[in-house]
Parts: sequence; structure tokens; C-alpha cells
Amino acid sequence: MSILIKNGLIITQNAKHEILKGDVYIEDDTITQLSEKPLRVEADYKIKAEGGWVLPGLINTHTHIPMTLLRGYADDMPLKRWLEECIWPVEAKLKPDHIKAGTRLGLLEMISSGTTSYLDMYFYEDIIGEVTMHAGVRGFLGFPLIDFDTPEYRKDYMIKGCESFIKKWRSNSIITPLVAPHSAYTCSPETLREAFELSERYDTLLHTHCSETREEVYDVEQRYGARPVEHLKKHGLLSHRMILAHCGWITKNEILDMKLGFVSVSHCPVSNMKIATGGYAPLPELLEADVPVGLGTDGAASNNTLDMFETMKFCALMHKHHRWDPTILPAQMVLDLATRDGARCLRMEDKLGSLEEGKKADVIIIDSRNARFTPLHDPVSHIVYAARGSDVSHVIVNGKPLMMDYEFLTMDHDKIIADAERYAKDLVGSNTD
Amino acid sequence: MSILIKNGLIITQNAKHEILKGDVYIEDDTITQLSEKPLRVEADYKIKAEGGWVLPGLINTHTHIPMTLLRGYADDMPLKRWLEECIWPVEAKLKPDHIKAGTRLGLLEMISSGTTSYLDMYFYEDIIGEVTMHAGVRGFLGFPLIDFDTPEYRKDYMIKGCESFIKKWRSNSIITPLVAPHSAYTCSPETLREAFELSERYDTLLHTHCSETREEVYDVEQRYGARPVEHLKKHGLLSHRMILAHCGWITKNEILDMKLGFVSVSHCPVSNMKIATGGYAPLPELLEADVPVGLGTDGAASNNTLDMFETMKFCALMHKHHRWDPTILPAQMVLDLATRDGARCLRMEDKLGSLEEGKKADVIIIDSRNARFTPLHDPVSHIVYAARGSDVSHVIVNGKPLMMDYEFLTMDHDKIIADAERYAKDLVGSNTD
Repeated sequence: MSILIKNGLIITQNAKHEILKGDVYIEDDTITQLSEKPLRVEADYKIKAEGGWVLPGLINTHTHIPMTLLRGYADDMPLKRWLEECIWPVEAKLKPDHIKAGTRLGLLEMISSGTTSYLDMYFYEDIIGEVTMHAGVRGFLGFPLIDFDTPEYRKDYMIKGCESFIKKWRSNSIITPLVAPHSAYTCSPETLREAFELSERYDTLLHTHCSETREEVYDVEQRYGARPVEHLKKHGLLSHRMILAHCGWITKNEILDMKLGFVSVSHCPVSNMKIATGGYAPLPELLEADVPVGLGTDGAASNNTLDMFETMKFCALMHKHHRWDPTILPAQMVLDLATRDGARCLRMEDKLGSLEEGKKADVIIIDSRNARFTPLHDPVSHIVYAARGSDVSHVIVNGKPLMMDYEFLTMDHDKIIADAERYAKDLVGSNTD
Repeated sequence: MSILIKNGLIITQNAKHEILKGDVYIEDDTITQLSEKPLRVEADYKIKAEGGWVLPGLINTHTHIPMTLLRGYADDMPLKRWLEECIWPVEAKLKPDHIKAGTRLGLLEMISSGTTSYLDMYFYEDIIGEVTMHAGVRGFLGFPLIDFDTPEYRKDYMIKGCESFIKKWRSNSIITPLVAPHSAYTCSPETLREAFELSERYDTLLHTHCSETREEVYDVEQRYGARPVEHLKKHGLLSHRMILAHCGWITKNEILDMKLGFVSVSHCPVSNMKIATGGYAPLPELLEADVPVGLGTDGAASNNTLDMFETMKFCALMHKHHRWDPTILPAQMVLDLATRDGARCLRMEDKLGSLEEGKKADVIIIDSRNARFTPLHDPVSHIVYAARGSDVSHVIVNGKPLMMDYEFLTMDHDKIIADAERYAKDLVGSNTD
């Protein structure tokens, strides 16, 4: 298949941050030409961008996609009560059909808001893989390991399940399996080490929650005599495979350990603020230490969207305000976090995160004819400070069009919304009936 | 004129926060019927809401509307350099045509994002009044007083200009003139007192910036031996007429003065965070003291949108995170700030801010068929945590339809965008040519 995008303003996100006016040509799964001169080539799809902004697809480095079913179900509650009274009892009732409905809903939202790759961690990740592959979104799917039985697996079978999961998916073109021990406070050191061994054996990424809340840091310190990052280091989990989600309560010493361990960080500002963790992942220091940092939405139950444009704006503003310094996290740096740096976290910097010849064709187009994007002093400013996911008109993943002029090509919008409504009610009922 | 809205989910925002399924009937400028039974009446316009959420229009209590022309022109800079090198030199070049173009752009953005009332303060407020009246948006327009010459007035003529402005507009049905001394650090005590006298003589509101930055508080203390709120109190400006913008750096004693003075506050979380003032208007304490608090976007140069939905989410999350408490500023309270409480700030609580029979017909409809609003556990949660301005499909102000099914009825979208682009270039040039 081939796609020709005509007359775009191409925000390449290459190392020089070049912005070109021109055409993009995609053949099969690859960007084969970027040109400031009009390309005269045949293509199965021709898209007239007409000044629209052509960008690399956004990369969401931390979510729990089926939790879309719990969007708006329980807000504004203390974390412990929220988890113990609302989230966990509902999660215990999850069946494969709920997972399918919630995943489809999340994929619909991600496609419609320009996210082309996502890093997930949830029960039934194999079902999430099937649904994601069908929708055509690039999934980095973390099989969860945790020291209690889940709706899907008895504890004793998890490692085996994880191994089967990896074997099933490791040759897939858009689904990448990985190992996701839930956290240092829910996994024993032994489970953590088993997770690491699996990731080594099959050469996969690792993903875990780390230092999201003060309570977590306190618990891990009490139990193991070390802060979470130190604890992970002690058990060998700080490696180039590891992406740590949150890191809101880490120290300078931990940043040094993270740098020396070559780990990456997924920063989730909206979720952290809504749950009110009070923590601020120290982005200036992490970036100074050259620790790769990507952005994540976290699950929709604590955000309540999967909109990476919103996450970019929250990221920029949260850190400026916290440090009393409007110059930190400038727009270009934040757009990098959501694209180039996200790809680096996933060890995909040679394939994803920018529009360059030879890279995978994960491309989105923003319709720029909008009062919010007027006047056009600087498109990167508008992308970070004024855009919403709803401004995305076209989405291409791995060379395949998933949304063209706001129309979904791989998903049935109305059916997905109706099904999600039905399965959410089946889980928890609804206030408005 | 009459308008019938059928089959909406009516988020009344009345004192009981009732949510009804049914119809809304508007005659001339007034809501005359809300009914859970289908209304069988004639109407000039019939809107099939079909489950869409019908809400009172949002109230933006602080902006500088022509600054839309500077959206994205200069971001991520230290405040002083931003003002002195980028904003003020450009503002000095402002001509009426720039004001018209920027105001039209801002109105287009406000209509498209469901804002039906706004409180403004800028040069050439009379031109802003003409353009706003023509667009049909409800404007509370503050004639600025400041102790130096502006592009519009020599200092000596300002009070006279303000008086003419008030006389011209005070009987208008949708434009309400008011007196806007810029701030305690740019207005002498004498100017402040003159502003107050004018507002008393003509029974208008007063609007000023107050305690936005630490530098401002320090300057006022150095010059007058009092913090800004104390200083305003000393000169008689704390009254039921006064709406103070920002209040990010105030003390408990100042809150007591504000309560006893019956002033209102316009809280602008997005602008405060982007400019990185570091201050947090102490909303829990202000609301506890029953000080009316509304939300504002501030100008587009420091936001960079006029989207009140975004401002609601930032408001909720900013305070939760700052106080380490997810229970504060729950969704319903934040929606109140943007509607009922905004009306209270403007002393319009008997006419605006909720959908009730006898109130002015400022009504918006949100298209609820959206992945982000699925599932529907709680519409108020979705409005605050998941909606964007771009979800608004219909806008009615004072009984007049301004946007129907995303089509503008009083504004020429393409021409406004082209003009804004042209006049912005005329002011500052553009990076992308």
C-alpha cells in the first residue's frame, strides 16, 4: 500500500527539529520520501493536507487501556478509598468481554486523538493484543506480574502465562510484548527477579510503577530498608530494558542510579495531579542526566482521557509553575517527550518518534484551520499549548490509514460506544438511568 | 424569537444541581420552560439535542480579548522579559483594526468553546464593545485606567473616556460597561479612588489585577507599606463592586478583608501556571469564607486558549495536587465556578449561571456522542475532566442562536481567521514564512 500526503507543514521532529512545507510519501510500512518539491508519484491514498500539520504519531508510555470503562465512575476520592472501594472490587469482576469493550473504546479514543503507539499494563493483555492488532494501533503490551491472583491468572501460573504471551507476540509487526511486574510494593524481590530473567531471556522491555505516592515510598522503605529505585537496583532491575512509570517522589541519588542503570521514565502529569500525589517527577534533573523521559496518560479512571495533547500542556505548565520558572519545559522539549523521547524509552528511536525517510510510517495530521491555531506565529507552540486530540484529522500507523478526515477505517465508532456503555453498566451500573 | 431544545440531558446548575431529561423552551431573551415532558410548542428554531448535554453558557471572568493576536508569539520566557521585549512593544503599535481583528478571533473561539459571557479589560474597549455586540456574546467590558499613556488615550483623558464609555453602553442589553483600574502597582491611590468614584456614580462593577506575582506584592509593599489587598482596602476599593483577578499570593488576613469587603475573585489557573507565578489562589479558604470565585482564562498570550473547559480541568487538578488532596475542588464545585459562581462575581446571579425559568437564555449544548464521554457514569465528571471546548455544538446567548450544529450564525469563520492572520503579521511578522 502507498499513501501520499500533499502540501503539509511537516513538523519532522528530526534531530534538527526541521519544519518543511511539502509532501510525504509512504510505501508499505515505511516513510520513503519527504520532499519540499511536489512529489509526482502514484498512491493508493492521496491526502490533501493543505497546510495541515503533519507530525509523527504521539507515543503514550503508560496506560491501562481497559480502564476506559471506569472513566468518570469515581472521581475526587482519597486514593486508598478509591482503590479499595471502587476500582479493585470492580476489577475483580472483569471478564474478557469487558476487556474487549474497554480496549476498543480506548483505541477509538487514542486513534481519534493522534496516539499511534501505547505502552500498556493490565490483566488479559493477550486479549488487548488481539483487539489492538485488529485496530492497527502499535501496542507495547506489558504482561502484568503481581503477587496475588488476578481475574485472569492464579499467581502460580503467571510466569508461564507471561512466557506464552511473549512467544505468541514477539514476531508481530505492530504488537511488542513485554514483562510488567506491577510494582516494588506488590511484587516480592523474587517476582521482580523472575520478571527480569524473562525479559533477558526473550529480549523484551520491562515496565513497572515506581515512586508514584509517598505511601508507596514509605511502605517499600519500611519493608525493604530501601527506597523503591534503590530496591529495584538491588535486585538487578535497573537496566536499559526498564521503563519506570511516575517517579514523582525520587531523590537526586535515585536519579544517579537511574542514569547509571540506563532506565527510562514515563511521566504522567494529569494522573498524578488528579490523584493528588503531590509529587513532581523531577524532569529538569532527569533530562539533565540524559534519562529518557516519555509522557503517559495513565488509565482513564485517573485522568480521565487518553489525550496526549492535553498531557503535553499539563506537563509543560506543571513544571513551570512548580519551579517558578516559565522557561523550563519549553514547547519544543515537551513535543519531543511525546514523540522522539517516547520512542527512545521504548528503544525504538531508530524506527519511531520522527518523520524521516526510512522510519516507520506512524503519521498524524492536525487540521490547522481553527481559531485556536490563529495566528500562526509558531506551530510547535500551538501543538503544545492550544491543540486538543480532537484537532487530529488523519492517523496512519505502520503505513496503514486508521482515520481519514475524521472517519475511522478499522473501527466501528457507534458500535464501540454502545458496547462500552453496555459493558460498563454490566460492571458498575450508571448514575444517569 | 423562540427556540425549542428537544430531548436534552439538562444540567440545570440550579441550587439543587438538578439534572433533567427533557426540553427547554426559550422566548425572546428568556428561558420560559424547562420540562421533563415533551413540550408541544411552536418555535423559530427546533434543536434536536438527542441526549446532548444542555448547560448554562460558561462565564469567563478575566481576559484581554484582542491578545488572541499574540497567541503563541512568545512563550516560555521570563515574565519581565516577555512583557518588556515582546508584549509591551507590540501593544504600543496597536491600532483599532488590530483590536477588531483580535476581538473577532477571540469571540469566534469563545463561541466555538461555549463561553457566553466574558469579563474583559483592554485598550479600545469601546471597539471591543461594538464587535462583541455584533457577534452577540455577552460582554462585561472594563475600561482600563492606568497611570501612563496608552495607545488609545493620554493619561489625562482616561477618566473622561471611561465616563463616556459607561454612558454609551450602560443601557445595552448584552454589553455591560465597568471600570477597570489596571492594578495597585500601575495606578496611584488617586487613580484607584477616581475609579471607585466612577463605579459608584454609575453603579458599575470594578475589575483589577491583584497579587498575581510575588514581585507585584513586593513592589506594592515597598511603595505603600501594605500588601495589595490591604492597599486596596485602605483606599476604599474593597466593595461588592470589585472583582480581583488572580489573588495567587494572598494571606489569610487578606481573605478576611476580602470577605468583609464583599469582593469577588477571578481565578486563572492556566495563565498562572504558564507564566509560572508559583502562586495558588487559596480556593478552599476563599470558598470557605464565601468569597465568590469565578474562573478566567486570562489573555490568549499567556494561556494560550480561551477554552473554559480546559480551565475547569486545570483548576480542579491544580488544587488537588497542591494540597495533596484529591477530594477538594470536586467536579460539581468546579462546574459551579464556571457558571453559577461566575454569575455571582458579576452580580448577575438572578439572571445568569443556571438554566431556570425566568433566567436569561444563555445556553450551550455539548455533543455527547464521543469516545471521551463513554461510558456515561456521571455527565458532570465528563464536563470537567473529559470535555473540550470543541465538543460544544450549539450556543445561544440572550435567546439568540450564535452557533447551531457547529455553524456560526453571526460570524464569518474563514474571513475572521484570514484577517487575524493578516493583522497579526502586520503587528509582529511570522516565523513560518
